[in-house]
Amino acid sequence: MMDSPPGVADLLGVLAYAELTAFLRFAEDATRHAPSLTDRAALGGLAAAEYAHFQLLRDRISSLGVDPEEAMTPFAGPLDEWHAQTAPGDWLETLMKAYVGTGIALDFYREAATRVDDETRDLVEEVLADEGRSQFAVERVSVAIKEDPRQSGRLALWARRLVGEALSQGQHVALARPELATLLVPAGDDITRMFARLTEAHGRRMAALGLPSRP
Amino acid sequence: MMDSPPGVADLLGVLAYAELTAFLRFAEDATRHAPSLTDRAALGGLAAAEYAHFQLLRDRISSLGVDPEEAMTPFAGPLDEWHAQTAPGDWLETLMKAYVGTGIALDFYREAATRVDDETRDLVEEVLADEGRSQFAVERVSVAIKEDPRQSGRLALWARRLVGEALSQGQHVALARPELATLLVPAGDDITRMFARLTEAHGRRMAALGLPSRP
Repeated sequence: MMDSPPGVADLLGVLAYAELTAFLRFAEDATRHAPSLTDRAALGGLAAAEYAHFQLLRDRISSLGVDPEEAMTPFAGPLDEWHAQTAPGDWLETLMKAYVGTGIALDFYREAATRVDDETRDLVEEVLADEGRSQFAVERVSVAIKEDPRQSGRLALWARRLVGEALSQGQHVALARPELATLLVPAGDDITRMFARLTEAHGRRMAALGLPSRP
Repeated sequence: MMDSPPGVADLLGVLAYAELTAFLRFAEDATRHAPSLTDRAALGGLAAAEYAHFQLLRDRISSLGVDPEEAMTPFAGPLDEWHAQTAPGDWLETLMKAYVGTGIALDFYREAATRVDDETRDLVEEVLADEGRSQFAVERVSVAIKEDPRQSGRLALWARRLVGEALSQGQHVALARPELATLLVPAGDDITRMFARLTEAHGRRMAALGLPSRP
C-alpha cells in the first residue's frame, strides 16, 4: 500500500465487489428471465467476463498486501442494496440493467483511471477494453423498442430508476469512505460534479436507444 | 454432422446444457450460501470455469452445423429437474453438490471420450484437464467433517441423494434419446453397466472424504 495513494484499496475493493456481485446477479437473472437458451448463454457470457475482471482486481488488491475480503466488505451493503432495489421483472428489464449497470461501472472506471498509480491504471484499461461486451444487450433492447414502441416509456422509467438508485448508493459510499471520495475528486472539485458527469453519460446512453433520459 | 457418429450432437448438447446450468446454479448457490466473500469468489471461479466449458461445447456443436439451442433443448427438462431436486440448503451441501456433481460430470466425460471422433475427444480432454477445480470444495468439506464429525451422516445422505437423482434423470435421458445411449454403450454392453461404473466412482469419491457411499 505504501506506493499507492490513499483510497486505492477502497477503489479496487468497490470495483472488485461490484464485478463479483454483477457476475452472480447476471447469472441469476439469466436463469430467471432469458426467453431462450441462446439468450441465457449471451447474458452468461457477460457474467463470466465480470468474473474475469473480479479476478484481476482481487489479485491487484492482494499484491498491495491487502486482504481482498477486507477491501470489499465495506461496499457489500450499498451494492447489495442497489441490486435489491433493481431486481429486474422481465428479460427487457434484465437487458436494460446489464446495459445501464455496465455503462455506469465503465464511466466510474474511466473517472478512476485518471487518478491512480500506473499499475492500477493498466488494470483499469484492461477492464475498459472489454467494453463492447454489453453491446448485445443494447441491440436486443433497440429491436424490442422498434417492434413495440409502447415499451419505451416503461424502459425509460426503469433506466431512470437504475441510475437514480446507483447515485443514491454512490452518495452513501462517498460519505462513508472519505479517502475514496478524495481520490476520485481532484482538489477544488466536488463529488456532485462527478455524479453530474455520470448522469450526463447515462443520458447519452439513453439517447443512443432513442429513449429520453428523464421520462 | 456427416462425419460424426449419430448421437454426437446429443452428447455435446447434454454436456453443453449441463455446463451452462451448472454455471448459473453455482453462481446462485454462491450468492445464497457462501459464508464469506472469499468462499463466494471460490465457488464463483468454479462457475466461471463451467461457462468456459460451455463455450467450447457450443462452438463444437455449431461447427457440426447444428443449432446449439436445438442440441441442448431435449436435455433442459431432466437437468433442470436434477437441480430442482437437489437445491442445497446450506454451504456444506453446496460444496458437496459441487464436488459430487462435477465428479459425476467428469466420469460421464471420460465414458464419452472413448466413443467419439478425434475432434470431440480433444475437446473432452480439454475439459477433463480442468478437473482440479473442484478440489477446494472437497478440502473444505473434509475440514468441516473433521471439526464436527456429526456432519458426516447428513452429508453422506445428501451425497447419496445427489447421485441417486442423477442416475434417475440419466435413465430418463437414455430412454428418450436412444442414439445417445447407443453412442455411450458399446455393442453387447448395457447402459446399466455404465450407471454401475458411475456409482462405483461416486463411492470412491465418498471414501476419499471418509464417508460411506451408502449411509
